[in-house]
Amino acid sequence: MPKSVLFDREEVLRKVTTLFWEKGYHGTSMQDLVDATGLNRSSIYNSFGDKFQLYEESLKYYQGLQSELVNSYFAQAQSPKQSIISLFEGIRDEIIKGPGEKGCFLSNCTTELSHSEPRIHDFLVKNKERMTRMFSALIQKAQQTGEIASSKNARHLALYLFSSLQGLRVTSMLDKKRSDIQGITDQILSVL
Amino acid sequence: MPKSVLFDREEVLRKVTTLFWEKGYHGTSMQDLVDATGLNRSSIYNSFGDKFQLYEESLKYYQGLQSELVNSYFAQAQSPKQSIISLFEGIRDEIIKGPGEKGCFLSNCTTELSHSEPRIHDFLVKNKERMTRMFSALIQKAQQTGEIASSKNARHLALYLFSSLQGLRVTSMLDKKRSDIQGITDQILSVL
Repeated sequence: MPKSVLFDREEVLRKVTTLFWEKGYHGTSMQDLVDATGLNRSSIYNSFGDKFQLYEESLKYYQGLQSELVNSYFAQAQSPKQSIISLFEGIRDEIIKGPGEKGCFLSNCTTELSHSEPRIHDFLVKNKERMTRMFSALIQKAQQTGEIASSKNARHLALYLFSSLQGLRVTSMLDKKRSDIQGITDQILSVL
Repeated sequence: MPKSVLFDREEVLRKVTTLFWEKGYHGTSMQDLVDATGLNRSSIYNSFGDKFQLYEESLKYYQGLQSELVNSYFAQAQSPKQSIISLFEGIRDEIIKGPGEKGCFLSNCTTELSHSEPRIHDFLVKNKERMTRMFSALIQKAQQTGEIASSKNARHLALYLFSSLQGLRVTSMLDKKRSDIQGITDQILSVL
């Protein structure tokens, strides 16, 4: 059994993801990664490749966790429109109760690397399209049942929801006051 | 006359701001600053202080430019509500026609440094409050003239506009398609 797998890969990824999320790609040094994981440099290189590959793996790991979270919000909802509301209210509550002001790893990654790293840009564009398709499908279902006015453009509304989510996460890094975050979320959802 | 002022300070700040905006604080090396400005390290240190002080000065310089831009949008508007619309439409057109996908320097700075650098956090919170007050004053004037329903909470609507602006700038780093950016902007403004 090679030395490089004598650790819990998911546990390491979890620690590394927290670090990249908090400090960004350029703000995280190889030494930070060694300190956070307890692994030496060669173990990290052997198991994950270089810093950039490790960062990419962290992004995918975070995206997987976010998908699980979204599904858990949807599971509580009784209708397509309620699914969207439940998602925003879940994120709102997470922001208000959350311990830190790290924002969203994917938004932070967008502002740091999307214009300089084509592979990261592609990953983020695909993530945006996936989320927009998800919102669009819910909006169209809600339009069929009359929950959302059929006069609204489903794609534009879906893009607006994606954009609003980015804005909420960035703003929450500067303002976690309950009434403010609640007020912004209510205004976002008033468009539905 | 000390050597350190034998250059155009604003021209240097303009170049440095473009660099920090594009590459972020941690992604910009001292060598990048030397290469972009044509100044040597000691001239930079003597005139602007260390990299962090230079970054702070760049943020203030960018904020000043943004204020001028906002005022130019407001100058075209016929009413308080139109001022808000004109600002969003101006930014929308800037995104669509703009050359790059650098986003907004202040949003990029928020995701990179607001949780780790208290001085930067304070600066960004003050900027958010300044913009929110500006939006709030316009909304209240528009409510007095009946342009915006007086039942709406001016502070929450102002925070929503600030948040929507962050979202639009982050999203535009992944999508500059005219109809998409136009669609998001229309949805944002439909709340007014």
